[in-house]
Amino acid sequence: MLSFENDYNVGAHPKLLQRLAETNLEPQTGYGLDGFCAAAKDKIKLACGCPEAEIFFLTGGTQTNQVVIDAVLQRYEGVVAAQTAHIALHEAGAIEFSGHKVLELPSHDGKVCASELKTMMERFYGDDSHEHMVCPGMVYLSFPTELGTLYSKAELTELNAVSREYDLPLFIDGARLGYGLMSRENDLTLPELASLCDVFYIGGTKVGALCGEAVVFPHGNMPKHFLTRAKQHGALLAKGRVLGVQFDALFTDNLYFEIARNAIERAEETKAVFREKGCRVWKETPTNQQFLIIADSDLPRISSQVAYSFWEKYDDSHTVIRLVTSWATTKEQVAQLRNIL
Amino acid sequence: MLSFENDYNVGAHPKLLQRLAETNLEPQTGYGLDGFCAAAKDKIKLACGCPEAEIFFLTGGTQTNQVVIDAVLQRYEGVVAAQTAHIALHEAGAIEFSGHKVLELPSHDGKVCASELKTMMERFYGDDSHEHMVCPGMVYLSFPTELGTLYSKAELTELNAVSREYDLPLFIDGARLGYGLMSRENDLTLPELASLCDVFYIGGTKVGALCGEAVVFPHGNMPKHFLTRAKQHGALLAKGRVLGVQFDALFTDNLYFEIARNAIERAEETKAVFREKGCRVWKETPTNQQFLIIADSDLPRISSQVAYSFWEKYDDSHTVIRLVTSWATTKEQVAQLRNIL
Amino acid sequence: MLSFENDYNVGAHPKLLQRLAETNLEPQTGYGLDGFCAAAKDKIKLACGCPEAEIFFLTGGTQTNQVVIDAVLQRYEGVVAAQTAHIALHEAGAIEFSGHKVLELPSHDGKVCASELKTMMERFYGDDSHEHMVCPGMVYLSFPTELGTLYSKAELTELNAVSREYDLPLFIDGARLGYGLMSRENDLTLPELASLCDVFYIGGTKVGALCGEAVVFPHGNMPKHFLTRAKQHGALLAKGRVLGVQFDALFTDNLYFEIARNAIERAEETKAVFREKGCRVWKETPTNQQFLIIADSDLPRISSQVAYSFWEKYDDSHTVIRLVTSWATTKEQVAQLRNIL
Amino acid sequence: MLSFENDYNVGAHPKLLQRLAETNLEPQTGYGLDGFCAAAKDKIKLACGCPEAEIFFLTGGTQTNQVVIDAVLQRYEGVVAAQTAHIALHEAGAIEFSGHKVLELPSHDGKVCASELKTMMERFYGDDSHEHMVCPGMVYLSFPTELGTLYSKAELTELNAVSREYDLPLFIDGARLGYGLMSRENDLTLPELASLCDVFYIGGTKVGALCGEAVVFPHGNMPKHFLTRAKQHGALLAKGRVLGVQFDALFTDNLYFEIARNAIERAEETKAVFREKGCRVWKETPTNQQFLIIADSDLPRISSQVAYSFWEKYDDSHTVIRLVTSWATTKEQVAQLRNIL
Repeated sequence: MLSFENDYNVGAHPKLLQRLAETNLEPQTGYGLDGFCAAAKDKIKLACGCPEAEIFFLTGGTQTNQVVIDAVLQRYEGVVAAQTAHIALHEAGAIEFSGHKVLELPSHDGKVCASELKTMMERFYGDDSHEHMVCPGMVYLSFPTELGTLYSKAELTELNAVSREYDLPLFIDGARLGYGLMSRENDLTLPELASLCDVFYIGGTKVGALCGEAVVFPHGNMPKHFLTRAKQHGALLAKGRVLGVQFDALFTDNLYFEIARNAIERAEETKAVFREKGCRVWKETPTNQQFLIIADSDLPRISSQVAYSFWEKYDDSHTVIRLVTSWATTKEQVAQLRNIL
Repeated sequence: MLSFENDYNVGAHPKLLQRLAETNLEPQTGYGLDGFCAAAKDKIKLACGCPEAEIFFLTGGTQTNQVVIDAVLQRYEGVVAAQTAHIALHEAGAIEFSGHKVLELPSHDGKVCASELKTMMERFYGDDSHEHMVCPGMVYLSFPTELGTLYSKAELTELNAVSREYDLPLFIDGARLGYGLMSRENDLTLPELASLCDVFYIGGTKVGALCGEAVVFPHGNMPKHFLTRAKQHGALLAKGRVLGVQFDALFTDNLYFEIARNAIERAEETKAVFREKGCRVWKETPTNQQFLIIADSDLPRISSQVAYSFWEKYDDSHTVIRLVTSWATTKEQVAQLRNIL
Repeated sequence: MLSFENDYNVGAHPKLLQRLAETNLEPQTGYGLDGFCAAAKDKIKLACGCPEAEIFFLTGGTQTNQVVIDAVLQRYEGVVAAQTAHIALHEAGAIEFSGHKVLELPSHDGKVCASELKTMMERFYGDDSHEHMVCPGMVYLSFPTELGTLYSKAELTELNAVSREYDLPLFIDGARLGYGLMSRENDLTLPELASLCDVFYIGGTKVGALCGEAVVFPHGNMPKHFLTRAKQHGALLAKGRVLGVQFDALFTDNLYFEIARNAIERAEETKAVFREKGCRVWKETPTNQQFLIIADSDLPRISSQVAYSFWEKYDDSHTVIRLVTSWATTKEQVAQLRNIL
Repeated sequence: MLSFENDYNVGAHPKLLQRLAETNLEPQTGYGLDGFCAAAKDKIKLACGCPEAEIFFLTGGTQTNQVVIDAVLQRYEGVVAAQTAHIALHEAGAIEFSGHKVLELPSHDGKVCASELKTMMERFYGDDSHEHMVCPGMVYLSFPTELGTLYSKAELTELNAVSREYDLPLFIDGARLGYGLMSRENDLTLPELASLCDVFYIGGTKVGALCGEAVVFPHGNMPKHFLTRAKQHGALLAKGRVLGVQFDALFTDNLYFEIARNAIERAEETKAVFREKGCRVWKETPTNQQFLIIADSDLPRISSQVAYSFWEKYDDSHTVIRLVTSWATTKEQVAQLRNIL
């Protein structure tokens, strides 16, 4: 059974497993205070061009969004995000669980737009009753977005400018960061991205790790007592080394970027297959997620041979499905997909 | 540097790493719905003698306590626990973060006492103003306790009886469950323990896994939408397989119990060393944690050779330290400790 | 200075003050267990035609919405409401503060539409990943809405049918209930409204009381331990009698309805004034709130003579203002308004 | 039926009702921004000797404790209080509901002791694992305490010193502040009390008002966006004037203190009655609450003639009851009580 279901359907890149095995019996202190975490942080700072960055390792994406947003916001503030944002739709209300409203902006192919953010802020402060409303306290965006699209350097720069104007910390969810950075259409370097936001995370779960996300506060601006806050959310791993060893491996010899590039190359090949086969494309993206419109009558045949993600109903007789490549997708798998389609 | 600091200072039992490597590239669906989790659940049900049990894998102890307690309690209820309970002292307020008070009972070497629980309940319902107080909604205990002690079958049976009388679900934190079950002083089997409570968890992090706790609702009594609730807490792992593979390995060929026995045997040896060396013992326990009183003047020498945990100040010139064995502790390490002491 | 600013700009109807004075020194037990609350509940049950109703008095509207929604929802559920709903916009995130997402439906003049609710539910359950989303757990609507509009009996019946189909409790925010019931366009009686929902409240603050809202669970379906839940929200008044005495007076001799009718009659007169004066109307409503478009250049003159509410900017040179009548508005005040416009 | 049940068993002082009636139809803006609130704040500042104070009116005691504590604390912090504190025992978990742990100190007749607070703080910061514990973030005490006792100026000064040392805001719950200040044993003036804490509230509900508590931040140190925070808790009254008018009246012509003195004088008379009648006193206090030990066999007779509060069981055949005087208690009522005892 072929799987293009998602980018977390297999384990970890073999080098990470190898390093876990090699370091397995070295005693280390817990809770992320170990030497592996320290080494990984140094390498990440270097890759981000942020010597003053503060870094914290968490386990998964929803957890990271919840912990970061709750730590950055004041109690009475909400987080601005696209209507299609993961935090708005697919995190079971984890942000609201910690007390904060997700203030939605329209989605433009998964992205928020600086001018609409500015209008939201002007309206908020222009409203006589804004003290009775949820105060926008930070901006969330994802890179790549949930729809596989990317912010350009110009777009991110504009968003950063509005954020600065209204003193809104800008948070980039990088669950798939590697796939965004290695996209052929991307014009942002990691240091540029780091300099244009207040906090972001480097996704491990979807880019080669068993689990793990590296939260980066690039300007040494980690909220105080972040470890305590993470613990309070149940998010502090006793064996923090598990995350440290993996991120240390991912940021050794450019591994994170090399394996992300694989997903992009395989994605480009799947797009060529779709064109060749005349597939009806719902959305073609510059990263590792592609969306096809499939007749419902064809679904049983396809789903018996390839695992995909249901996205949404297109109409009464068609469905949008998502096909995802990852660091682990092989040329052979793309060839098999071609045969099935 | 020798480490008796805690039971999470090294990685995972090699068989778990081996299984993670062997299964690494098999595509599986996410969020714990994979085949490895299913297999692990079957083996755990068998070990617990609970064919109707419902099982869910989470990542760490504090997270598990928070998710379980919040899922079992009504919004206005609190959880009863010993003053020394992990949830009362060392989880950074994770229970209160999710809105629930920890209602404290006296600690008897880390244990709560059935008669004091009964008195608490009688007083609560006997108080005219109890509708203005936090309603006790479940009982939390740990096996072994935070002080390494154990409930006997008689004690747990009594607690179960009071719980039944007041309709209080009984929750056993089994972060170190293996070490309790394999203790020479333990008189409870895993099926007995399962039958005497409403929910418990089998600790993996401290007993051979990289991370992972298996929550067991032995009577098919898992709260509805538990997956959604876990997600809302940021506790749902995308690659649930990581936990499934490990627990599958731990419950294959009795591994969980075999490696737990190692910690107990090494603990017995350390206790013999303490007696031989005339160490001043603060608390000797039947499980894998031992507590010594050390003159502050000796601490620098000891801490330069062996990692331990600070427990508390004993008096102006002495400190209580904790020495912990684990599944990974070797006879050689105990011998080295003997030399140092 | 004339005030059409809102319907809470003066104190209480004189009969309520008189009853507060008459009963002032009668000792009564606290927390709503007094005789005045009991008498008020009996009268409200009679007015609602619900002998089995359970009733609880709270102090204000946002508080009532928060307490009721949090008591009715399961922890992981959200509340469906119009984008313009008070809980979505103007309660400072009180619903999210208690952990629940507001799931927004389009607003049709402030109202939600049964077919769109049904579509939302079909989509939710039709989505493979709905366990990762916020589960709709109840429906909130306001009668009259925040825009002064009303649900017809047919509309409410349809909403009730969808609610039944999906087991969604239906909650009606009746902060201005009296003004809705007494509107000339209204075709619902209070007993009909009560029978078509699962919980509603009868607003006192905006209809003649100093403060106070009467929450009615018409089918004897008040969540257990509601007093404790209210207390936990800080919403339980020690001198519950203050609310009991006022609601007892409001539901004696039809007072609640009589004084609500006054607001409607004065509102009809203001609408006649607007027509006569050729005012540019943004929204004319069948209840006590009217919305005008005013040139910004006229605002200083108007605002020096009459207090109104800013609603929103209409365009670069016009503003929407809201003019509100209440139980206390007099014919003389409408005449003065006429002179000013 | 005579009532010594509590100090909230009747309505408001007649002068407050009179002022509510006199001001009833003056239109005012909502949410505490009206002229009555402004006037009341000015008078309170004067009484407190704090020209720079910031003041906010809330409705009840539990609500005030919840809003203030949640606004002052960081998310991960807890509040230190006596085991007998209202927030620890009798607020249905309102503090935990908003996410904060109540960190308990021993009660000395309802009071916390500066040296024990200091020891708690030393232990906390001396513990290697304090980042895994709840950080004490403020101190709560009540004046008078829940047991009717008082802090002396020396005791409060010591507590203030420890608070300063550890940067712990000191919060005084003054639900019965007037009764404390007017006690014959009290050696603190209101300005002294204000200068020795960071926030306190002046209780209205128990001292002459229908409802209402005035929160005072004496050093101009009100947390930002306090109105929004209050609203988020459902604690913002639309008709803030109701609180403003009452506090304006209470702080006109010394009324608050005069009526508080009545409660103290009547309490002194009840104590004389107890001595004369040889009643078994459980606790005699310098304020308006007295506690007697009554044989259970006598309770039916007493409770048929006088309303009191059950406090706790004393032993198998005796009960502790509480008898409370208030601003409204008359000499005649004390005489009647004498006859009954």
